[in-house]
Amino acid sequence: MSHFSKSGPAPTRRTLLRTTAAGAALTTVGLAGSTAAHATSPVRPGPRIGILLYDGFSVLDATGPAEVLSRLPGAEVTMVAQRRGPVRTDTGDLRVMAERSIADVDRFDVLLVPGAGARGTTSTIANRSLLEWIRKVHRHTRWTTSVCTGSLVLAAAGLLEGRKATTYWASAPYLESVYGVTYVPERYVRSGKIITAAGVSAGLDMALQLSALMAGDTTAQALQLALEYDPQPPFDSGNAAEAEPWLKELALQLLAQSQV
Amino acid sequence: MSHFSKSGPAPTRRTLLRTTAAGAALTTVGLAGSTAAHATSPVRPGPRIGILLYDGFSVLDATGPAEVLSRLPGAEVTMVAQRRGPVRTDTGDLRVMAERSIADVDRFDVLLVPGAGARGTTSTIANRSLLEWIRKVHRHTRWTTSVCTGSLVLAAAGLLEGRKATTYWASAPYLESVYGVTYVPERYVRSGKIITAAGVSAGLDMALQLSALMAGDTTAQALQLALEYDPQPPFDSGNAAEAEPWLKELALQLLAQSQV
Repeated sequence: MSHFSKSGPAPTRRTLLRTTAAGAALTTVGLAGSTAAHATSPVRPGPRIGILLYDGFSVLDATGPAEVLSRLPGAEVTMVAQRRGPVRTDTGDLRVMAERSIADVDRFDVLLVPGAGARGTTSTIANRSLLEWIRKVHRHTRWTTSVCTGSLVLAAAGLLEGRKATTYWASAPYLESVYGVTYVPERYVRSGKIITAAGVSAGLDMALQLSALMAGDTTAQALQLALEYDPQPPFDSGNAAEAEPWLKELALQLLAQSQV
Repeated sequence: MSHFSKSGPAPTRRTLLRTTAAGAALTTVGLAGSTAAHATSPVRPGPRIGILLYDGFSVLDATGPAEVLSRLPGAEVTMVAQRRGPVRTDTGDLRVMAERSIADVDRFDVLLVPGAGARGTTSTIANRSLLEWIRKVHRHTRWTTSVCTGSLVLAAAGLLEGRKATTYWASAPYLESVYGVTYVPERYVRSGKIITAAGVSAGLDMALQLSALMAGDTTAQALQLALEYDPQPPFDSGNAAEAEPWLKELALQLLAQSQV
């Protein structure tokens, strides 16, 4: 079922832990995971998850869901881009490696398209080969998903026609007016096999919901605990529907100034 | 004040947006940020933030705070590792580029040490040159921070002696018994200029609090809105203090099985 395998035989955790006293102690207190995990047979192949990177993507849009989905039993997460190699984020500070090019692979169980600032979004919704690749992959996915302005990219690829979807709060009028999509201001919105998430951090919530859909509620609940996702932001300012106009303006200023 | 500058003159957002009709539309609806942002003079240098990558780190530990802190006015986020180049995450699926080596740089306003699985944590707490670098950088930071088992690394570097701190829930007994640190089961714990965060996703909450400390509550509130951080996880299972033992066991199994 899997197109890619992790290269070469990896040392088992048990082997690694036997080599140091610290490792033994870590096992004892749970850092290394339960010994029961090591006693089980190898995990069967799980979902193959492809995350599309492109110049100017927002790092958390891609890596938040990657953190969650990579823990699904047997899952493989592959970062894909037009070309293999490092892909720069919107701030220009970070680069994440694309391990495959779109020419290398066109089958995934899950496709995820992250969002970006204006530069990354405008160039991607005008990139015909990327949009064609998205359409091709989408034909065979179990789930096609997006985070933030990634839903504009799905819309540009023609996948959201007649659907409801969410996106970054400031991009909702664009999604509605340019693509005729019905914007639903929720954390994530499912329409058939397409799930769109709201801005940036919403990818975490969406990925947990997607985990529940693929592996069941119990596994998703355990994943949430595995990532200690018991959010306690210091403020209550993350919901645009309740934000004052001046705070929205400041938020957009901070974004614009941080982007290259 | 800044040791690093983004290389070369970047085109302004205004330039980029003028080139496409789509860009203009994006500006209108706010995706590109407010026009007011473009009218302001260049942002003065802000905090230089160094995030230490090492083989086996957990991607969200590093990229969650990077997403937040990179939006602080004038901020520069630099990924640093023992050697420049791609650094592999705990699952082996992802690689993030370290743009500087520890030999290149030893001054940051903020140092952040992410956590890892057993492999990454055990090798890092035994890596004398990394620990020495952390001590050297810490002497001049405004804030020294960690996420998840990153606090074990700070402890191994000798920075948490006689302090209270937090860490990944399953690693708390290790932090207490091996390093004599007082574990406080909170989302993030400040002790002097050191702030430790709980597991993985807690780095987001900590980074927002740190943003408030550095740039004020209003800026931090706007950042939270900029990232649409209005968390709505599908379950209420992320708090280890309230979790059943079997769910903790399952969470640790999922982690162990996902790591290479």
